[in-house]
Amino acid sequence: MELAIDKLIEKIIEKKSPIVMGIDPRYEFIPDSIKNKYEKNLTGFAKASTEFAKKLIDYTYDIIPAIKPQLAYFEMMGPDGLIAFKEISEYAREKDLIVIADGKRGDIGTTSKAYSNAFLGATKINENEEKVYNSDFVTVNPYMGFDAVSPFVEDCEKYNKGIFILVKTSNKSSGELQDLYLENGKQVFEHVANLVESWGETLRGKYGYSSVAAVVGATYPEQLKKIREIAPHTFFLIPGYGAQGGKAEDISLGFDKNGLGGIINASRSLMCAYKSERWSGTYSEEQFAEATRAEAIRMRDELNLGIKLATK
Amino acid sequence: MELAIDKLIEKIIEKKSPIVMGIDPRYEFIPDSIKNKYEKNLTGFAKASTEFAKKLIDYTYDIIPAIKPQLAYFEMMGPDGLIAFKEISEYAREKDLIVIADGKRGDIGTTSKAYSNAFLGATKINENEEKVYNSDFVTVNPYMGFDAVSPFVEDCEKYNKGIFILVKTSNKSSGELQDLYLENGKQVFEHVANLVESWGETLRGKYGYSSVAAVVGATYPEQLKKIREIAPHTFFLIPGYGAQGGKAEDISLGFDKNGLGGIINASRSLMCAYKSERWSGTYSEEQFAEATRAEAIRMRDELNLGIKLATK
Repeated sequence: MELAIDKLIEKIIEKKSPIVMGIDPRYEFIPDSIKNKYEKNLTGFAKASTEFAKKLIDYTYDIIPAIKPQLAYFEMMGPDGLIAFKEISEYAREKDLIVIADGKRGDIGTTSKAYSNAFLGATKINENEEKVYNSDFVTVNPYMGFDAVSPFVEDCEKYNKGIFILVKTSNKSSGELQDLYLENGKQVFEHVANLVESWGETLRGKYGYSSVAAVVGATYPEQLKKIREIAPHTFFLIPGYGAQGGKAEDISLGFDKNGLGGIINASRSLMCAYKSERWSGTYSEEQFAEATRAEAIRMRDELNLGIKLATK
Repeated sequence: MELAIDKLIEKIIEKKSPIVMGIDPRYEFIPDSIKNKYEKNLTGFAKASTEFAKKLIDYTYDIIPAIKPQLAYFEMMGPDGLIAFKEISEYAREKDLIVIADGKRGDIGTTSKAYSNAFLGATKINENEEKVYNSDFVTVNPYMGFDAVSPFVEDCEKYNKGIFILVKTSNKSSGELQDLYLENGKQVFEHVANLVESWGETLRGKYGYSSVAAVVGATYPEQLKKIREIAPHTFFLIPGYGAQGGKAEDISLGFDKNGLGGIINASRSLMCAYKSERWSGTYSEEQFAEATRAEAIRMRDELNLGIKLATK
């Protein structure tokens, strides 16, 4: 079986597209043409989200390698939200997309094992193993150290899955902890980058990157560059492009001479392309998925050019 | 309306019991007499967990102030697990127990807001606000800094809820990040303790503690003591007692002269009391809830004595 990271990188190469579409089904993101079909309650919200996400997948699966459903948005719909998350995940996998479950999970060992069962592995009931969400990757929080991460790593080995561990996040106050200087002169995020690089040693694939990967925001290009140096075998999930302010030239600092090394997340800019200045004149609200496709192509070309110029 | 932390402390005083019962429904914890009634799949697992937890609540609600369902275990049952979590939470609230949802959530601001909607606040659908899980508290991870925490704090203010932020966790490798020394000579957990103390300033109640509280493990008494000094207005959720090795005299370091300051979690030792050396001779498997009650009383008395001796 193929390593999860190799599978992801191959899809990036095949589709010439380093983009993952974030699925953050906020109520205000969903077009009225869909919302009006459903009841105005949590169940209706979950069903509308499912229809919305499936249509976005229909219009993009040939040009993007992966989706990243954000679990928080599904969780706020109650149990029906998790049904939606499952259905969207399965639909994406049928279309041969990689699914990155964004949950930033992590707890003491036995508890992290339960999270890993949910997203990567399987839940044991006597001798039966039942797959739950069967995501390809899940995002993980490192604050509790390695025993909170190791159950995920073990399932990466056993089930050919992957994880993205938070190293440097894209938000404004990420520095409050991550940028603190340690007594050895290094910053916390550098220390974590080192840990992630070593935790992933046994899971390196044919492109030189490990299935134990990292979240590194586009909004801090200096840190992105530093982390690339510290962790040359660590693949990056890069949030913060577009709406949050990250630019193609910033992101390219995370890439190698083959133009590989990361996948860039775009959530709002893809999901809400139909509302954007750029596309709202061209596409009606009913054509929201065409607008998302157009924006995915534009973004892909912009990113590919930026990465090519920077890494040639 | 009363602050969540005051409500919790009042229940601790009223029941003379600083114990929260952790609800970690691992399959092997559930007695066969319950499991055998249900199908051997995720739905059956979720239903068995619900019956198990409700019976434990029936036998303890008059002697404990709170329960702490661990979301990871519910998540690994799929969407049915969240139905179980909701049903158990509602049942506990009917019995006037405080519900601490243990999810260790946290993400960039807009996303943390979605988590907070799920556990503390409400999900807006047009003009309607729908409560989702309506927990009293949720546990939060600080790695992303204040903008990842602030949506929870805002909902604490708006809905009279509370949060427990990870400061020093009870697991073995917690020190890999939390114990690192900063250039100013302080350790990371001290820095976080300082942050938590300040984030909670506006939510301090009549006992001097804030609804913005902290997770501090019983397994590191030195650090527990230090955090109590740094953060005198910060209430502690203390895991690691019993099965993980924390003792009553260690825990008492977190308490003030009134014998207040924290609530001690016990999961396995309460849920699986019927399997323990201490109680398995007295109670049969069918009497699992009686065993849990007996252990909760024993634990309560042990902890009260330890805290009294240390804080008098």
